[in-house]
Amino acid sequence: MTDLLTTLLRRWQLPDGQGAAALQDFARRHGTPLYLYSAPLIERRIGELRAELPAGLALLYAVKANPLPAVVARIAPLVDGCDVTSAAEIALARAAGVAGETLSVAGPGKRDEDLAAAVAAEALVVVESLAEARRLAALANGRRPRVALRVNPPFSLAADAQMGGGPRKFGVDSEDAPAVLGELGRLPLAFEGFHVYAGSRCLDALAIAEAQRATLKLACELAPFAPAPVRVLNLGGGLGIPCFPGETALDLAVVGDALRALSKEAARRLPAARLTLELGRYLVGEAGLYLTRVVERKTSRGRTFLIVDGGAHHHWHATGALEGRRHLHFPITVVGAGRHATERVTLVGPLCAPHDTWAEDIELPVAGPGDLVAVFQSGAYGASASPQAFLGRPPAAELVIDRAAGLPEPLPNT
Amino acid sequence: MTDLLTTLLRRWQLPDGQGAAALQDFARRHGTPLYLYSAPLIERRIGELRAELPAGLALLYAVKANPLPAVVARIAPLVDGCDVTSAAEIALARAAGVAGETLSVAGPGKRDEDLAAAVAAEALVVVESLAEARRLAALANGRRPRVALRVNPPFSLAADAQMGGGPRKFGVDSEDAPAVLGELGRLPLAFEGFHVYAGSRCLDALAIAEAQRATLKLACELAPFAPAPVRVLNLGGGLGIPCFPGETALDLAVVGDALRALSKEAARRLPAARLTLELGRYLVGEAGLYLTRVVERKTSRGRTFLIVDGGAHHHWHATGALEGRRHLHFPITVVGAGRHATERVTLVGPLCAPHDTWAEDIELPVAGPGDLVAVFQSGAYGASASPQAFLGRPPAAELVIDRAAGLPEPLPNT
Repeated sequence: MTDLLTTLLRRWQLPDGQGAAALQDFARRHGTPLYLYSAPLIERRIGELRAELPAGLALLYAVKANPLPAVVARIAPLVDGCDVTSAAEIALARAAGVAGETLSVAGPGKRDEDLAAAVAAEALVVVESLAEARRLAALANGRRPRVALRVNPPFSLAADAQMGGGPRKFGVDSEDAPAVLGELGRLPLAFEGFHVYAGSRCLDALAIAEAQRATLKLACELAPFAPAPVRVLNLGGGLGIPCFPGETALDLAVVGDALRALSKEAARRLPAARLTLELGRYLVGEAGLYLTRVVERKTSRGRTFLIVDGGAHHHWHATGALEGRRHLHFPITVVGAGRHATERVTLVGPLCAPHDTWAEDIELPVAGPGDLVAVFQSGAYGASASPQAFLGRPPAAELVIDRAAGLPEPLPNT
Repeated sequence: MTDLLTTLLRRWQLPDGQGAAALQDFARRHGTPLYLYSAPLIERRIGELRAELPAGLALLYAVKANPLPAVVARIAPLVDGCDVTSAAEIALARAAGVAGETLSVAGPGKRDEDLAAAVAAEALVVVESLAEARRLAALANGRRPRVALRVNPPFSLAADAQMGGGPRKFGVDSEDAPAVLGELGRLPLAFEGFHVYAGSRCLDALAIAEAQRATLKLACELAPFAPAPVRVLNLGGGLGIPCFPGETALDLAVVGDALRALSKEAARRLPAARLTLELGRYLVGEAGLYLTRVVERKTSRGRTFLIVDGGAHHHWHATGALEGRRHLHFPITVVGAGRHATERVTLVGPLCAPHDTWAEDIELPVAGPGDLVAVFQSGAYGASASPQAFLGRPPAAELVIDRAAGLPEPLPNT
C-alpha cells in the first residue's frame, strides 16, 4: 500500500520531475497564490467512474464543490446534469452549457428567487418540506414543476452522522413521508421521485453500498404512497477522497459492483426509476493543486516557520482546523529540483490569526523565500468556500490546465 | 448583574420596543440578510474609551475587524490612526480619510506590494523579522521608512495562548530582539519603537493590565539596544466583548486606571514614548446587528428547526463552531411585537452543510416564515471574514445607521 503523499507526488511528477518545471512556469506566469485544476485528471476520474457505474445511472456534478465556470464547462459534457442550490448556481450551470432540465435543485431554505429560477429552467426541484412544495406550486405560474422529495432517512452513512438520521434541517423525515406524499399529489407538481443524502466524505466502499441499499429499500417502502411512479432515485453522494495521512482511496470497484447489483434490484422493484449519484469533491478534489510561495523563513524559540503568501482566506478547509482534527493536515510538498534534504517545519499563512496554519511540525524539503509550495487534493471546497476578502488580501487566481498546457500527462493511480 | 441578552435587548429596544419597528423597516427597505452598524454605538464606545484612557495614548482602529468603507470613514475622525495589514487596507483607509502617516502596517508575510504601499503612504511599518526589515529597506527608494519592531513576548495574555509567548510566526522573539535591533540600526530605516501583541478577546481587565505592564517592562529592557529613542510603544489590543452566555463586559474603568498608571511610569522610564492601543472588535463588535429572515419552520423527529436566509457564508464566526465551543452561541432574538410565548428551537442557515447552525436548542420567541431574527454583537469579523461566495448565495447587505435613520438612540449600558 503506497502512502498518500507518495501517490500524489508520483501523480503530479513531483517534487523534482517534469511536473515541477511546469508548476513553476504556471506560478511565474500567473502569480501566486494560484489554484490549478487539471482537466485531464477530472476527465480521467469521470472516465474511471463511468467504467464502474451501471450504464443507466445518472451522474450529476455538485457545482458547490467547485463553481469556477471553466471547471463546470469542462465537466458539463461528461455528466448527465448538475446538482445546484441557488438561482446563481442555476445561472452559472446554464451559462456553462448545462441544459436546464438536467439540473437538480436541492438545499434547505430555498428562497422564492431560487424556486422561480428552477421553474424557469424546467429543472427538477428537490423539495425539502411540504411548505417548500407549496411555495413552489404557488409560483409555478401555470407550469407543473418537476419535483423529487428529499427524505431524511432513519440511517446515516457510517462516516457522517451530520447529514442523515436523527433530527435534521434536510428533507422530510422518512416516517412523515407517506403523509407528505399524499399532500404532494394534491399540488400542481409533477412528482418524479426521491432524494436521500446519507452522508459525505466516506472512504469506506462497503458503508456506501450499505447506505445505498438502505436508500433503495426506503424508496420501495415509500413508492406506494407516491402520487406517480418513481422515475428518479437520487442516492446522494458521499464518495470521499483521501486527504489525511493514513487515509486510502475509496475502492471504486467495490462501489461499482454494489451499484450494478443495486441497479438490477431497482429495475425489478422500481422499474421506472433511474438511479442518480451527485458527486462534487469526488470528481474535482484530487484534480486541484493550490500553489503558494514562501515569503519568509524564520525561527522562533526552536521552531522553524515557513510563512507563505496563501492561507486560510483562500483555502479554509486546509487550514484552521488543525486542533479539531488532531493536527492532521492536507498533503503538502515543496516544488523544487534536486533538494532532497528535509526538515521539520510549521507552515503558516500570512493572516494575523493563529488559525492560519497549514501544518504544524511537518517534514518538508528544506525551503526558503521564493520557493513554491503545493497543497494537494485542493480541487474542491477551496476558493469559493473561503473568506477571500479577509484582510484585504487579493483572491487566488484559478486556472484550468490542459494536456497542451505543459503539465505532463498525469500518471495512472497505482 | 444583568444577563447579556437582557442587556442587549434593552440596548436595542427589542424585542417589542421602538427598536423592533425600526429594524423591520430597515429589513423591508434593504432586504435580508442585512448587517446594520450603528454609528451612535460606535461613537459612544469610542467616547467611553477615550474618557478612561490617559490623554496622550494613541488609539488605532484595526481595520480588519470591519473594513466596510462607510464604517472606516465614521471611525477615522475619532481615532489617531488605523492598524492595517495589506496594500488594499492601506488604500481603503486612505480613501476613508485616514492620513497615511497615521497608519500602522503590521502582519507576518507582508508581500513586497504591501511594503511598497506602506512606504508610499509614509506609514509606520511594524516589521515582523529582520528579513522583512531588509526587504523594506531594499525597496525604500531613497526614503527612510519609519519602523517599529514587533516583539514576540515571553508571556501571553491569560485568555489567549495563541498570539504571544512560545514559538510564533509573529514578530521577533524577545530574546533575539537585542541582536535584531543592532542590525536594524545598520539599515536605512527610522526606528520608532516596539509593537507587542499578547492576545485577543480578553474580558479580564486585570489580565490585560498585567500584560500591558509586562509589555512596558519588556520595552524598557530592550530600549538600550534600540538604534533610537522609543517613540512608539504599541501595546496591542485584546479588549474583548461578551458574546456568550455568562460572559460579562470588560471593566473599562479598571483598564483605564491601569493604563493611566502605566502611562505615568512610561513617561518616567521611556520619556519619548507614546503608548498606543489598536482595537478592532472592541470598537465595532457591539455596534453591529445581523438581520436574517425565517424562510421555513419545520419539525424533524421532535426537534423544531427555524431555517433562516442567512448563514455561515455571511457570519462564519457566529456559526459552525458550536461543537468546538460546547454549544455556546451568539446572543439572538426574534424581532417582533407582542409575542411573548417562547419555545426551544434549533436555528440554522440555508447551506447544504451541517456546520451552518446558529444555535442548537435555544429558547426564542415563537416564530415562523417571514419573521426577523437578530444576531447581536455582529459588528466585527462578520461579512469580510466569511466565505460569501459559497453556494452562489448573494452577499449580505451592509449599512451604517445614524441617529437620523429611525433607530432609537441607543440606551446607556447598564
